[in-house]
Amino acid sequence: MKPLFVMIIFVITAAESASIPHIPRFPGQSAGSRLRNHAAATHHASKYDTRYFHQRLDHFSFAEAPGFKQRYLVGPSAGLWTPPSPIFFYCGNEGDIEWFSDNTGFVWEIAPAFSALVIFAEHRYYGESMPFGSREEAYKDAKSLSYLTTEQAIADFATLIIDLKRNLSAEDSPVVLFGGSYGGMLAAWMRLKYPHIAIGALASSAPILQFEDIAPPESFYDIVSSDFKRESRNCFDVIKNSWDVLEAQGKYDDGLVKLSRKFRLCKELNNTQQLSDWLDSAYSYLAMVDYPYASNFLMPLPAYPIKEVCKKVDGFPDGADFLDRIFAGASIYYNYTGSVDCFDLEDDPHGMSGWDWQACSEMVMPLSRSKENSMFPAYEFNYSAFADECSQSYGVKPRPAWITTEFGGHDISKVLKKFGSNIIFSNGLLDPWSGGGVLQNISHSIVALVTELGAHHIDLRASTKDDPEWLVELREMEIKLIKGWIDDYFQERASYSL
Amino acid sequence: MKPLFVMIIFVITAAESASIPHIPRFPGQSAGSRLRNHAAATHHASKYDTRYFHQRLDHFSFAEAPGFKQRYLVGPSAGLWTPPSPIFFYCGNEGDIEWFSDNTGFVWEIAPAFSALVIFAEHRYYGESMPFGSREEAYKDAKSLSYLTTEQAIADFATLIIDLKRNLSAEDSPVVLFGGSYGGMLAAWMRLKYPHIAIGALASSAPILQFEDIAPPESFYDIVSSDFKRESRNCFDVIKNSWDVLEAQGKYDDGLVKLSRKFRLCKELNNTQQLSDWLDSAYSYLAMVDYPYASNFLMPLPAYPIKEVCKKVDGFPDGADFLDRIFAGASIYYNYTGSVDCFDLEDDPHGMSGWDWQACSEMVMPLSRSKENSMFPAYEFNYSAFADECSQSYGVKPRPAWITTEFGGHDISKVLKKFGSNIIFSNGLLDPWSGGGVLQNISHSIVALVTELGAHHIDLRASTKDDPEWLVELREMEIKLIKGWIDDYFQERASYSL
Repeated sequence: MKPLFVMIIFVITAAESASIPHIPRFPGQSAGSRLRNHAAATHHASKYDTRYFHQRLDHFSFAEAPGFKQRYLVGPSAGLWTPPSPIFFYCGNEGDIEWFSDNTGFVWEIAPAFSALVIFAEHRYYGESMPFGSREEAYKDAKSLSYLTTEQAIADFATLIIDLKRNLSAEDSPVVLFGGSYGGMLAAWMRLKYPHIAIGALASSAPILQFEDIAPPESFYDIVSSDFKRESRNCFDVIKNSWDVLEAQGKYDDGLVKLSRKFRLCKELNNTQQLSDWLDSAYSYLAMVDYPYASNFLMPLPAYPIKEVCKKVDGFPDGADFLDRIFAGASIYYNYTGSVDCFDLEDDPHGMSGWDWQACSEMVMPLSRSKENSMFPAYEFNYSAFADECSQSYGVKPRPAWITTEFGGHDISKVLKKFGSNIIFSNGLLDPWSGGGVLQNISHSIVALVTELGAHHIDLRASTKDDPEWLVELREMEIKLIKGWIDDYFQERASYSL
Repeated sequence: MKPLFVMIIFVITAAESASIPHIPRFPGQSAGSRLRNHAAATHHASKYDTRYFHQRLDHFSFAEAPGFKQRYLVGPSAGLWTPPSPIFFYCGNEGDIEWFSDNTGFVWEIAPAFSALVIFAEHRYYGESMPFGSREEAYKDAKSLSYLTTEQAIADFATLIIDLKRNLSAEDSPVVLFGGSYGGMLAAWMRLKYPHIAIGALASSAPILQFEDIAPPESFYDIVSSDFKRESRNCFDVIKNSWDVLEAQGKYDDGLVKLSRKFRLCKELNNTQQLSDWLDSAYSYLAMVDYPYASNFLMPLPAYPIKEVCKKVDGFPDGADFLDRIFAGASIYYNYTGSVDCFDLEDDPHGMSGWDWQACSEMVMPLSRSKENSMFPAYEFNYSAFADECSQSYGVKPRPAWITTEFGGHDISKVLKKFGSNIIFSNGLLDPWSGGGVLQNISHSIVALVTELGAHHIDLRASTKDDPEWLVELREMEIKLIKGWIDDYFQERASYSL
């Protein structure tokens, strides 16, 4: 099994930090090609049909551009659903939609009780939903990628829903949006921008405030770090000190060779940075998927994986080598099943990934690493270096203020207190993305559900026998709120037709 | 003075009607080139500075495209306004922004009492705000026109406001949107789509429901007709019967010559249709500007101009020629000052106008003419003929369902009852566009102000000594509501900073 981490679009000056952080990703990015490895991959496959919708490439201009086929999953099969029962619509994010469907069991599980039709719509430029006929053509250059934007993606969803409802004679069916992570941002924004199309949205772990200076840029890495610190102060300290050790080691004559051997790498290291990034990714993703039961979202992992990592790190005798501890810890993430012979740090470091493009164009989420609270090398986000790198790597100039211009974010409580309705923002405080989330109720019907021990959109996952009580209660609350929206809708509809 | 009516993009089959209606326009379309003729043109000129903002051509993709200079008017001059006092922002419509400023005295008049800064922003592709460097280049073909859409225009406004507020250190100033007619649609839609940028909108005479099958397609011409009927049943009947007379006359050997002479045309008619369109325009515009005082919005006109037209039509002795009556009536509209020697029916029938492009791309407002209630030749809107003509004339395929996909409209009361806030929809029932307006309160703060005797956005015009009491009261109510939004905003702001 290969870890797939495509590289780096940050550069920083030496004065700021010794290390070069890469862009933290949402989990979806690495989903596509690992889909087939997942045990869960066919879990719900029998429940849905796969269909394709001819979608417009550019919704907001009349320029001639070829359309593309957008994939969506729909279930239950025709005949087993009757309008005006509700439609549960998952807003696909940056990856293969089947993978999101497999990892969003909550929606499939609750749908029958609502007699709801479930739709999982794939995001343009991901999975099979490629403009210009192929991934290669779609990802050719800045021009071909220029339509990979959130506004276009949300307009895809709007167009698809309206067309589906018409074809199913389901104009009166209420639509509820679901989304996790980036998909949760899309769900929340879609409810705000298209209230006539969806009656509400469950936005799970959606860091819609991680833009400009709204959320503190340090929050992501501070939370990753505190997730480790809460398990073990020693574990945190070992990791915090390991970066210098690693770098020092790399400077010896045969340092890179030794490091490559110690970390069982398939190819010899070119520099220590590659290894730092690999470790950084492991820690960040571990914080996202620090679930209370064994799971297989990004990797096969035990319950409470950070606890397991720290057990390894702490388990060595006093005076043991720092890097032995680190390797043992990282192996929990990268090799829990024990089946990996050697580790391949990068697949294609220059391959273009959709998320890197989005992060370099409009989804500019500034992230820093604090000296005080983080276990990572300190780093202060440097916009101009970031923009230079985007321009060099992708030929695109970021528009860092565009997302807040289009969707808001500043003073969100004030703005939405009397505007908008029916949005659930759910966040778990173990999730590093929760720092950019909405953590306080905004109004009677725009509510924040916060769980202290939740990780990245755990509520959207299928239920398990090991679910802790707080998770069961969280989901019950979500179901209750969604039921309230739907009941309101039908009550109002009945009063209109009197 | 030349009447400027560019022609026709409807075609209909003979089976449906003998006449070919043209697209009814909002008043703005013919504003630009007549601006300099207007007495009012410099009325407020001293109050504002003219500025230009470098605007992005395509907000919703990252395709490389040249920017353009967007013109805006701003007053009072620097130093005479202090944030966080409010900003009153007029959403420019389909014409020269100076003309809209001149004809929107209300905003200028009420601003001082609010200590408000006033901005009138020109709509892209109109006036001086031309992409690609010139009107000629901007209007060259479907490709160059493809960015002339409402969503792009509203995003222009959003971007401009955010940039202005930053430059003026006015981040805390509340923004109130104003707009009339198409500009009113933009103001309402902008409040819905960008609640974080503007705290409310006064949308005057904004037919946001004149799409698809939401409003009855006959309403526009039914209202024009009833405006005449309420003044004089005979006047209505004469006009209703005149179309056949006119057509019959045209069929005689020298019929067109005689008609051209009777109607004092500068150039001889090619067909009676030209004349019908000219008359149709006069009646439709008369209904829009049927103001209770002398005005000079589209043409110099007396108070209650329809009453004056009907006086002429009715004033002939029994048995007088129908067409003499018609000509005398039309002359009230086209030649009230008596200075016209001959009438020029069309300037350039094939010239491309911005509004025709918009009507052929996304602003598809189906209009029919009923047999029963209208004084016009019956016509049933035929979408496929319309689409064919658009494709032929402009090389564009209309997207008739796009506006409602993007902005809603169906079931608007239900959708917005619990969503959105702070919008005034004002409509006068004499205005033919009121048929597509929001005429009932939707919620506590999305309200409809309807006046029985109002014409097209009369509330936005400068006050006059002849204003009837209902108009004075209407404006007072609008001021009170706007003041309420602003007070709320500052109260909440104060409570946050405690």
